[in-house]
Amino acid sequence: MEENITYEPFELTREFLDNLHLFIESDDKSKVKEYLQELHPADIAEIYDELNIDEAKYTFLLLDQEVAADVLAELEEDDRKKFLKIIPSDILAKRFIENMDSDDATDVIQELPDKKRERVLSYLKDDEQTEDIKELLNYDEDTAGGLMAKELFAIHQDITIRQCIVELRKQAESVDEVYYIYVIDDNDKVVGTLSLKSLLTSPAQTKIFDICNTDIISVQAEEKSEEVALMMQKYDLVALPVVSFDGELLGRITIDDVVDVIKDEAEKDYQMISGLTDDVESSDSIYRLTRARFPWLLIGLFGGILGAGVIGYFEGDIIKYAGLALFLPLIAAMGGNAGVQSSSIVVQGIASGDLGIDSIGQKLIKELAVSFLNGIILSVLIFTYSFFFNDSYPLTISVSIALFIVIIFASIFGTLTPLILNRFKIDPALATGPFITTVNDIMGLLIYLSIARVVFLMF
Amino acid sequence: MEENITYEPFELTREFLDNLHLFIESDDKSKVKEYLQELHPADIAEIYDELNIDEAKYTFLLLDQEVAADVLAELEEDDRKKFLKIIPSDILAKRFIENMDSDDATDVIQELPDKKRERVLSYLKDDEQTEDIKELLNYDEDTAGGLMAKELFAIHQDITIRQCIVELRKQAESVDEVYYIYVIDDNDKVVGTLSLKSLLTSPAQTKIFDICNTDIISVQAEEKSEEVALMMQKYDLVALPVVSFDGELLGRITIDDVVDVIKDEAEKDYQMISGLTDDVESSDSIYRLTRARFPWLLIGLFGGILGAGVIGYFEGDIIKYAGLALFLPLIAAMGGNAGVQSSSIVVQGIASGDLGIDSIGQKLIKELAVSFLNGIILSVLIFTYSFFFNDSYPLTISVSIALFIVIIFASIFGTLTPLILNRFKIDPALATGPFITTVNDIMGLLIYLSIARVVFLMF
Repeated sequence: MEENITYEPFELTREFLDNLHLFIESDDKSKVKEYLQELHPADIAEIYDELNIDEAKYTFLLLDQEVAADVLAELEEDDRKKFLKIIPSDILAKRFIENMDSDDATDVIQELPDKKRERVLSYLKDDEQTEDIKELLNYDEDTAGGLMAKELFAIHQDITIRQCIVELRKQAESVDEVYYIYVIDDNDKVVGTLSLKSLLTSPAQTKIFDICNTDIISVQAEEKSEEVALMMQKYDLVALPVVSFDGELLGRITIDDVVDVIKDEAEKDYQMISGLTDDVESSDSIYRLTRARFPWLLIGLFGGILGAGVIGYFEGDIIKYAGLALFLPLIAAMGGNAGVQSSSIVVQGIASGDLGIDSIGQKLIKELAVSFLNGIILSVLIFTYSFFFNDSYPLTISVSIALFIVIIFASIFGTLTPLILNRFKIDPALATGPFITTVNDIMGLLIYLSIARVVFLMF
Repeated sequence: MEENITYEPFELTREFLDNLHLFIESDDKSKVKEYLQELHPADIAEIYDELNIDEAKYTFLLLDQEVAADVLAELEEDDRKKFLKIIPSDILAKRFIENMDSDDATDVIQELPDKKRERVLSYLKDDEQTEDIKELLNYDEDTAGGLMAKELFAIHQDITIRQCIVELRKQAESVDEVYYIYVIDDNDKVVGTLSLKSLLTSPAQTKIFDICNTDIISVQAEEKSEEVALMMQKYDLVALPVVSFDGELLGRITIDDVVDVIKDEAEKDYQMISGLTDDVESSDSIYRLTRARFPWLLIGLFGGILGAGVIGYFEGDIIKYAGLALFLPLIAAMGGNAGVQSSSIVVQGIASGDLGIDSIGQKLIKELAVSFLNGIILSVLIFTYSFFFNDSYPLTISVSIALFIVIIFASIFGTLTPLILNRFKIDPALATGPFITTVNDIMGLLIYLSIARVVFLMF
């Protein structure tokens, strides 16, 4: 029996960290060990985020090999890169990689520079593992092949339940968890899955082929990881077999890896719409946080300067009718808001693979209807306000008409841009960033001041 | 052997839908059946989104009972509600609920009005299922209890492998998929999990207790679903046992249900930052789309009117120095951008349970440093631009100082607001919505025009 440990949800506190620092400083190995050994590898990885590289190395060498391997797999890429730099190739191979599943091992090895990669591979004793990793290294990180692991249970369709159990016992040594047992034919083609239920409830002489479930959903190794994630979500799959072009079983993807893909995708889109150029957290360094935020602020500044140019062009009008200045921020902001609403709906639709079956033309007509409705209501509201609180009729008329047009323009522009970007294989989420908002701001100013010039001339 | 069907990734096309409409119209039952029977229930559910209620009912009654039950479980809540209204209680119980797992069945029954709920429950023939559903109905939808299903494999710790296999055969009838076998003691307390590997590789006489893995992570039924999602993500779990206060095994949550929680959470935050008040898709009705977008636009309009009030207060200054108008939109926009960046970083941190261990004071000092750096660079840039392209020194000085202060103010305000909202148990994501952006816009104008008044007086 393994040790009796129940993981309590762990919360990293300042106190815990202070103690740990103290133990490391005083070289109290047994205390450090005692402190860490009750934790889950994922929790230890979280602590490493807060240690410096020497402290990390010190504690790492105190962990059991298997725990250490799990921690390495759980570390965030930045932290791991730092750590991989200081670990010699032989230790990396023997203490870490050999204790990892093929997918995690490949992820780690992928992050090494070419030379070190070769060296680490040459130190691996298990030929099968080495071969698996070499195969997995060939796949693009963002494909099904890049997500899959080689560890799986596969049995031939022609054997019996009794033979199957013998075979599974053999394979069990190299596979930790099992979610599905895959059934293959002479050409290693997946023909079905065998449930534990069928395995347990069928007579020992039954042929596997007669009881396996042939409703299998599989994915080709070249498929994009976003597509894999959408499939596994839609069909509620826990594991998905990955096959070659002609159906040969290559590996399997488990849902926990896909959860990371789903989270990363959502975070990327969120980042874009918040105007961040990097996946930052509040615990990151001041330099990283500043760097992630500066680019979009800079674009905003340029946009503002262009806007100032537009307003400068109409400065004569503003000198004559200073009231025009009142609504400059309102018009700019409303254009920005309406545009972001439209583009985020389209971006979400593209991300979830659920854009509906309407053509672009139908989408635009609908968008026109929606923005027409919102525009007309808001326009009437601003007209009413301005009518009672401003004594300039031309101003009231200008701002009302401009608001209506700006909302329609921004909505259409916000709908079209992500669709066009997507058509050209550019990340449509770009359309939700400050770039498009800035364009909408400027267009809004141009529309407003142009309309005002005409209206004021007429009165 | 079951039917040999391999699911191709299905893509709903206009052509497919037109044909389906045609077959339904001409009452061609066999064609409709043929058309649908090759599809996965999740795909059929997608099609239902595009059918009217009569068409949906027509096709629903042509499906196999088990498929129909799966489709009902997969339907989006809106679509399902419409459908549940027109199905009589006895059919709902016998054709649908009885073919569902306890968690899905409970979700459906939860959506019924009280009276119909009682009636449906009374029509169920399986007493155990009825009891399970009644128990699950007691849990809040947003808790571990609300997510869990009662179907699981549980075996007593004191039996042997041989007895275990007999026991599993018995239980297999009511459980479709198995990811873990839970080991319990005399009080139904979970003491461990048994892997398929141990089950297959241990001698028949081995006691379960001696080979089970006691490193179990469990969750109490009252735990919030967000916490469950974070736990399962962090610890890479495929299934998680749900226990009562004293450790009694109540049910299990599988990762596919949690993936929906993760997606919903991410979507909610994204929606908030895009200024949408409802989870809309481009395929929704014009009315729904307009309604989801109007509220935030209205807040933006009020903000703009308040901004106009601020500018109106300084109208005298603008009449004297029309150049002031040039930078009104720039200052407002930059405040908004910087604020959203700050609050979205905090909101993401709260959502991922990873705010770091810094105190609020330390967070603010860091934020101050980051915004100071960005502010100083942008301020120098606008100073340089304005110095060369404007002949008014007071204006150049005003806009540079104002931009610097506005960026710092907006960043601090953007950091604090979600933290405060969270402290008061209000959704911190509110801070990323147009509401805060609008406040930042207005504060920006106030800061800019106040500084300008002082600077222009000094020159």
